Amino acid sequence: MTAKLIDGRAIAKRLNETTAKQSLALTSQGVIPGLAVIMVGDDPASAIYVRNKERQAGKLQFNSVVKKLPTTTTQTELLALVARYNQDPEIHAILVQSPLPDHLDEEEVVQAINPVKDVDGLHPINLGRLFGNVGLHYPVACTPKGIMTMLHDQKINISGQHVLMIGRSRLVGKPMVALLNNENATVTLAHRHTGADELTALSKMADIVIVAVGQPNIVTANMVKPGATIIDVGMNRKADGKLTGDVADTAIEVAGYITPVPGGVGPMTIATLMQQTVQLAAWQNGLEV
Amino acid sequence: MTAKLIDGRAIAKRLNETTAKQSLALTSQGVIPGLAVIMVGDDPASAIYVRNKERQAGKLQFNSVVKKLPTTTTQTELLALVARYNQDPEIHAILVQSPLPDHLDEEEVVQAINPVKDVDGLHPINLGRLFGNVGLHYPVACTPKGIMTMLHDQKINISGQHVLMIGRSRLVGKPMVALLNNENATVTLAHRHTGADELTALSKMADIVIVAVGQPNIVTANMVKPGATIIDVGMNRKADGKLTGDVADTAIEVAGYITPVPGGVGPMTIATLMQQTVQLAAWQNGLEV
Repeated sequence: MTAKLIDGRAIAKRLNETTAKQSLALTSQGVIPGLAVIMVGDDPASAIYVRNKERQAGKLQFNSVVKKLPTTTTQTELLALVARYNQDPEIHAILVQSPLPDHLDEEEVVQAINPVKDVDGLHPINLGRLFGNVGLHYPVACTPKGIMTMLHDQKINISGQHVLMIGRSRLVGKPMVALLNNENATVTLAHRHTGADELTALSKMADIVIVAVGQPNIVTANMVKPGATIIDVGMNRKADGKLTGDVADTAIEVAGYITPVPGGVGPMTIATLMQQTVQLAAWQNGLEV
Repeated sequence: MTAKLIDGRAIAKRLNETTAKQSLALTSQGVIPGLAVIMVGDDPASAIYVRNKERQAGKLQFNSVVKKLPTTTTQTELLALVARYNQDPEIHAILVQSPLPDHLDEEEVVQAINPVKDVDGLHPINLGRLFGNVGLHYPVACTPKGIMTMLHDQKINISGQHVLMIGRSRLVGKPMVALLNNENATVTLAHRHTGADELTALSKMADIVIVAVGQPNIVTANMVKPGATIIDVGMNRKADGKLTGDVADTAIEVAGYITPVPGGVGPMTIATLMQQTVQLAAWQNGLEV
């Protein structure tokens, strides 16, 4: 048996088509979705991510603003810029590209973003709504939200299934746990303190394994239950320059569904960022989407 | 082997002694810890809980206010009362006793409480801080916070241990998962949609099982790993009027540590409510505790 590859590019393409229609509908009502991306410094990986976001926002004819600030930017200057976008009625989504230079306090910046414009879903009130499963309209981190879209698209069962989430970042693992729990999965959250034997035993039991660690071969074929779904959020650069995920290549022989790297979760994250920018624009203007 | 019984009454007594000292220290600085408990209607179990809270707050010489409102209270009246306590500098902790009569919107009431006075830790911003593990001073639901105190008191390892949490309420299961994850446990959250076989398999692997379901015998001896710690949050009334938890009596033969019902988690919840009222009073006045 070989796993079915989940084609993230194809799903993202369909999602983008829906987003384009929604964006057009909003624009015809006088609301052009506005996305502001703030980048401080010149991290090369960040530069690529920001360029991809800018390009996609441009394709969808958003009001797309990319603000590149020098590494020497002060906390006060960065907070002032966030405050400006908080006030700007033409900006509906604000994203501060991570990582920030060490002298800046990322947490303070995140909490300074108006929660209704917090397109990364990192503000405690948005994380709390998600975890508490209260409220209808609030932003959620784009990678886990995109993974839910993938699972739904592939009609993979979630309710009553056991999911192992490996990695507990605030941008991926934690919101993923909450989203899955809200759809009635039994979820285990594992991380660097989880013993290797424990991780293997839990993984062998899991119907779905999602891994976002940033370390190749964290999940190997012997850890996969036959037929399980494997979602690989890892993006690691190999010695030859090629990208690889956190899951060993051999897992494909055992899994039922698996996401490739590249071409799996990656395209979904950007497509979901666009989808959510449109949603935030609609919600802020009392419109349906 | 028979499990060691974790004596919640004794641990609560020690906690109350510390709280009394802290309260005295605050009072000597002009801050009398103020706890307002609001109860709507005449649910008999709620009446007992509220009376116990009032008695303990009185013993600790808090400024203790219990407001009993008739079942016919409107949402507007309840929100007005919350707003009054939000403004009152002599009240540092506000607790709205659950359940509210059906015609009232509990969620709106919870979110109307000033987050710094939200002694049940139910406001999304407090749940989000806990889940995101950001910030130092914020309230956390008293039952899970009290369970952490018990585990620490008994010097039970948490980091790297596998914990199974059964039940996912916002007052117990969810904050418990976050507290344990923040102390580096590997946590699985199970609930009514978890299959019976899956629950047994997960329980057999778990170093710590915490159950808050409200159904006797959900955890039986065959589900317990020898030496594991079992925390029983259940409070069920048997036909003979006696209290029993969610764990079968026979589990004591297999577990390493177990909490009795009554006399386990119950006393810790009220003691933690008192502890946290003092903490909130201190934090709101920029004092140490």
